[in-house]
Amino acid sequence: MITDYQQLQRQVLCAQDFETLAQTQLDEALFAYIAGGSGREISLQRNLQAFSNVRLLPNSLQNVAQGSSAWYYKNHRFSAPIFLAPVAHQRLLNEQAEIASAQGAEAIEQGMILSTFSSYSLEEVAQASAGWQAFQLYHQPRIEDSMDLIRRAKQAGYQALVITVDAPVQSVSLQARKLGFQLPQALPPNLEDYPNPSVELAKDESYIFQGIMSQALNWQTLTQLIEFAKNLEIEVWIKGVLNPQQALRLQQLGVDALIVSNHGGRALDQAPSSLQMLPKIRQAVGAEMTILLDSGIRSGQDIFTALANGADAVMIGRLQVYALAVAGALGVAHLLKVLTEELQMTMALCGCASLHEINATQILESADV
Amino acid sequence: MITDYQQLQRQVLCAQDFETLAQTQLDEALFAYIAGGSGREISLQRNLQAFSNVRLLPNSLQNVAQGSSAWYYKNHRFSAPIFLAPVAHQRLLNEQAEIASAQGAEAIEQGMILSTFSSYSLEEVAQASAGWQAFQLYHQPRIEDSMDLIRRAKQAGYQALVITVDAPVQSVSLQARKLGFQLPQALPPNLEDYPNPSVELAKDESYIFQGIMSQALNWQTLTQLIEFAKNLEIEVWIKGVLNPQQALRLQQLGVDALIVSNHGGRALDQAPSSLQMLPKIRQAVGAEMTILLDSGIRSGQDIFTALANGADAVMIGRLQVYALAVAGALGVAHLLKVLTEELQMTMALCGCASLHEINATQILESADV
Amino acid sequence: MITDYQQLQRQVLCAQDFETLAQTQLDEALFAYIAGGSGREISLQRNLQAFSNVRLLPNSLQNVAQGSSAWYYKNHRFSAPIFLAPVAHQRLLNEQAEIASAQGAEAIEQGMILSTFSSYSLEEVAQASAGWQAFQLYHQPRIEDSMDLIRRAKQAGYQALVITVDAPVQSVSLQARKLGFQLPQALPPNLEDYPNPSVELAKDESYIFQGIMSQALNWQTLTQLIEFAKNLEIEVWIKGVLNPQQALRLQQLGVDALIVSNHGGRALDQAPSSLQMLPKIRQAVGAEMTILLDSGIRSGQDIFTALANGADAVMIGRLQVYALAVAGALGVAHLLKVLTEELQMTMALCGCASLHEINATQILESADV
Amino acid sequence: MITDYQQLQRQVLCAQDFETLAQTQLDEALFAYIAGGSGREISLQRNLQAFSNVRLLPNSLQNVAQGSSAWYYKNHRFSAPIFLAPVAHQRLLNEQAEIASAQGAEAIEQGMILSTFSSYSLEEVAQASAGWQAFQLYHQPRIEDSMDLIRRAKQAGYQALVITVDAPVQSVSLQARKLGFQLPQALPPNLEDYPNPSVELAKDESYIFQGIMSQALNWQTLTQLIEFAKNLEIEVWIKGVLNPQQALRLQQLGVDALIVSNHGGRALDQAPSSLQMLPKIRQAVGAEMTILLDSGIRSGQDIFTALANGADAVMIGRLQVYALAVAGALGVAHLLKVLTEELQMTMALCGCASLHEINATQILESADV
Repeated sequence: MITDYQQLQRQVLCAQDFETLAQTQLDEALFAYIAGGSGREISLQRNLQAFSNVRLLPNSLQNVAQGSSAWYYKNHRFSAPIFLAPVAHQRLLNEQAEIASAQGAEAIEQGMILSTFSSYSLEEVAQASAGWQAFQLYHQPRIEDSMDLIRRAKQAGYQALVITVDAPVQSVSLQARKLGFQLPQALPPNLEDYPNPSVELAKDESYIFQGIMSQALNWQTLTQLIEFAKNLEIEVWIKGVLNPQQALRLQQLGVDALIVSNHGGRALDQAPSSLQMLPKIRQAVGAEMTILLDSGIRSGQDIFTALANGADAVMIGRLQVYALAVAGALGVAHLLKVLTEELQMTMALCGCASLHEINATQILESADV
Repeated sequence: MITDYQQLQRQVLCAQDFETLAQTQLDEALFAYIAGGSGREISLQRNLQAFSNVRLLPNSLQNVAQGSSAWYYKNHRFSAPIFLAPVAHQRLLNEQAEIASAQGAEAIEQGMILSTFSSYSLEEVAQASAGWQAFQLYHQPRIEDSMDLIRRAKQAGYQALVITVDAPVQSVSLQARKLGFQLPQALPPNLEDYPNPSVELAKDESYIFQGIMSQALNWQTLTQLIEFAKNLEIEVWIKGVLNPQQALRLQQLGVDALIVSNHGGRALDQAPSSLQMLPKIRQAVGAEMTILLDSGIRSGQDIFTALANGADAVMIGRLQVYALAVAGALGVAHLLKVLTEELQMTMALCGCASLHEINATQILESADV
Repeated sequence: MITDYQQLQRQVLCAQDFETLAQTQLDEALFAYIAGGSGREISLQRNLQAFSNVRLLPNSLQNVAQGSSAWYYKNHRFSAPIFLAPVAHQRLLNEQAEIASAQGAEAIEQGMILSTFSSYSLEEVAQASAGWQAFQLYHQPRIEDSMDLIRRAKQAGYQALVITVDAPVQSVSLQARKLGFQLPQALPPNLEDYPNPSVELAKDESYIFQGIMSQALNWQTLTQLIEFAKNLEIEVWIKGVLNPQQALRLQQLGVDALIVSNHGGRALDQAPSSLQMLPKIRQAVGAEMTILLDSGIRSGQDIFTALANGADAVMIGRLQVYALAVAGALGVAHLLKVLTEELQMTMALCGCASLHEINATQILESADV
Repeated sequence: MITDYQQLQRQVLCAQDFETLAQTQLDEALFAYIAGGSGREISLQRNLQAFSNVRLLPNSLQNVAQGSSAWYYKNHRFSAPIFLAPVAHQRLLNEQAEIASAQGAEAIEQGMILSTFSSYSLEEVAQASAGWQAFQLYHQPRIEDSMDLIRRAKQAGYQALVITVDAPVQSVSLQARKLGFQLPQALPPNLEDYPNPSVELAKDESYIFQGIMSQALNWQTLTQLIEFAKNLEIEVWIKGVLNPQQALRLQQLGVDALIVSNHGGRALDQAPSSLQMLPKIRQAVGAEMTILLDSGIRSGQDIFTALANGADAVMIGRLQVYALAVAGALGVAHLLKVLTEELQMTMALCGCASLHEINATQILESADV
């Protein structure tokens, strides 16, 4: 682990350098778990390819000396529209785990989403940092347990609830499994009070349908959870939206923000990239709905691209974990600083002095390509 | 060969793992024979690429707790719409050969097609398994021999006759031939009573046209065979259809099912992938005709893709052979189980509780890509 | 060199095997000269890619037992529509050089075009073989020398004159030059009586324009040569046509056949593949004009593809040279036999009993891809 | 360094050979600095790919014996429409640096643009060569310093002022930085009298916006500089235009020429290739405006392609530097000679006797591809 800031600055010239550094440091199986995706990793590759395919149209000679990358959401000012995505089991990477991530984000005035599967309890993390934080919820088999988690998050001071809807079936990268990687077996701290109810399958029943999916979130329970959260006056963001029709229905349920995501290529392989679906979802829900883009961001330039395609802000998953492994809270803060400067540099080259000026005119349309 | 089920489960995390395992176990020339295709292997590559290019649109939050992958065909219930494709000479891979394949399929309640070139006679295989089986017919030079095979299949209890029409000229992969691979020289058991009539070519005659093709199946003899089979009250499926006009003509001849296939890239190289032709053939013959898709399936997700593109069921060739080589009947049964679960997981992620709900709306249209 | 026919048959399973065998046998620089193209070899790659991109639609069940690949041109019967392209300096590959090529083609009843730069004189080659032969003309700086060559070709019994128009500037592959390859310095036998007139360039004159191009064929001299040939009653074919407008103008000049070619990727790099231009040229000149396709043919299936795209026949360059190097006249004959059988097999799988039945319906249209 | 012309001719068969030779000679970090681009080097790759994708339509049989590649600009005759692009710090490659480049261009009667960051002062270079030269201006933080540079350039006899507008933020290739490359720390000779004013950032200010961009060129200062230059009667060319709207606005400001460029892939990564934007910019500003194309040229054939897409002339960056490193002034002169001959050969094969005949008809349109 790197603890000297000068050394970190010398070794990290761009955000993606954290990946290279992490790879040399982490156990091969653990790195494969983080870096990998589901199935043949087609969605994982699509996420990266989608960004590389974009053509940005520079626009020099604009006066951007008063420029800023600040983002305002419900009266909160973020230094840039970048959130740490909810990533499970961060103690695999650093002893301080989510506490370090939270402190890194706080230092740079950006936001963090805590995973249901965090290595420290939501109460511990909330106490350790005064930054903007949201709590990510994986729905539990018993709805009262999900509700209890929401209640705890509200009480601990989380600003929003982020309900993940795209991964009822989770699959660890095949490569990681072949290398012997195993997820921690113990119940994560947040779930210690909610042991999993056992499911008995009849002979002709399916492990997928009658097993896993019988406990999965569906529209009915989601509606109950949203209502429950609204009564507690906690915001509801939905993570894992790719389908424009689903986006529309979620909007009608009154959620506060949509996170367009294919779960970093870790859920349904062959799903389209989230960048590809972003403009369709923006079109479906209109200009006012808050939309975040998750999956595929590897640089500040990618953040600009996401915003030009209709996002208001983005989430950072793998890079966050790499930075945490490389340099703990310092690493996370530096990652966010580098991403912010890369974003600002792209804004400068494209002639945008504020986030509001980023739009589709900076993208060369397909028809022009 | 793996005989321990726990070990098999540890080593096979996805259906395609059988290929990796088989490659380490089989003689290089034999593996090349199975894995290879004709010519430059362009069609072989297209089969795989066609599936990888598809974008599946997830649809979470549907209630699929009552879901099932069962397929019903003429009152027979299959646990999933998956058939073992007819593969010749299975004793090259396992002493129990087609008997093991048949028992593997029976164990998981799926169907099996026996090749004309099986290593055990059709009567032996029928006796060794009570599962749903069909008999695949390569037309013989003398039509009475073909008819005798049909009669024997009916008598032995086969549920359907699968007539292959796409490979009058068969070619072993060049790579396999260079490695010294040779097909068994002896007449296969099913054909022991029908020695090949010799063909004498005149000086200017062509080995292809006046030789091989003079004995090949054509519309006239096919019509006779269909009539003959119908009189015996055995169903007729046609395997090797890529051409929509041919599909239409076959439908008019009253066949019961079409198997869209490019023979796994082993017949005409540069033929399109069967997945590409599938929607065109579905459009040509309408919604009621039973269509199976063969060639290119390597996962349960691919099966979902085939169904969303218009197939009712699929056939598995190479994976079957690999599983047979790796673990005999146990391997075949486990392969089918893994494929079924992969299919079910994809159904769950795309919000489909039954096969009937799988359709083109789960595919992102080209125009959207 | 292979002299045993059984051995040759074992080692050559497809036409392209001659390339592999030649590569092991030839000096690296010489092989690079033959295999290479001009510039970055973009046109060379396009030639191969264009064929690989084509989707052939099989059409089984047709009765082709009376099939044939014979081609008739002005009362001459060729066993297949395949010509040996004019290739210079064949003694680099085999002592018998063009004599061996001519005898190989004669043995299999196909045609051969002799290069102006042949290692044996046109008279010697004509005497050594009774097969169908044409003479290829590179225009000489002095038009009377070109005319003398035409006169000699007519007198020696050549059936046609093939005037090459696409390579006023020839460039040996950079790779070959780096490996030290040099073309033979002596005047080739056909040109011994026509020493090159020397060109003196003024200070500001260009080596390309005032040097090479001042001696190059142009429309005016071409018109004179065509008229001269017609008076001698020898047919005129034009080789090196890619431009549809040029094709039309050549048709109006009364030439007998057009050879669509990018000189095997050895002339203008970044020229389109000849296969790409073929349908445009066919459309420009109509159905009656005889068109041959040169550049990119590596198999009988490619020949089928060329015919389906509008060619009447094809020319074989590199493969011919490889076969000559590997096994002399026997190699050339075997190459032509293998190509013919590959063509026939493709015809059989696509349901074509004669060349006349090969047309665009066997190609899946782009709009369908 | 190669000093023998025969040896140079043997080793340089095409312009790109200078790159290969330079790579063996230069320090790895320095080579990475020259060869590399910004970010993921997507724009760098696009520059090359864009040229490779073009299909040139040959047009033989034209009479081009009177052909020439001469270009005339405001009564000055250049032997070809090729300029040495402004490249900084040339002493990194050769002791004679820009003086050698200038003399190489002069020898072959082509033009050279001197960088603001030249290793010799603009006065020294002007004195050392009588060829056509322009001076490239990077705007200085204090406008009076920029004006002083313009005044000095005019006084020293430069024919035009080339103002670069696309690289307010410059980034050295990540690969070069990882290899330890550092730009020279001393102020370049041209700037010795203009020390950088220091910028103090407040706590919440951005290093990009309030730092770098507060000193960057913008429309207002550019307008002043153009006016200033016009009063001095020195031509103004603008380098770094990709955006058609920007091109139009520059035209309205009365500039004399536009240089379409993405800074060789060294400015905004993911910018489109300059070749892609060229026709759009030509369309925006009409047929009369002088347009040069920079970025991606690696051969004379590429120059032809640029002209056929709407450019009047081109600029050569990396190749110039490689030639300078390989053989000093002799290398630069030879590079320009080779490029000119490659251009002429392409003109000959496409039937163009003068630059005026090069146009879009020599390009196969996308719709035809």
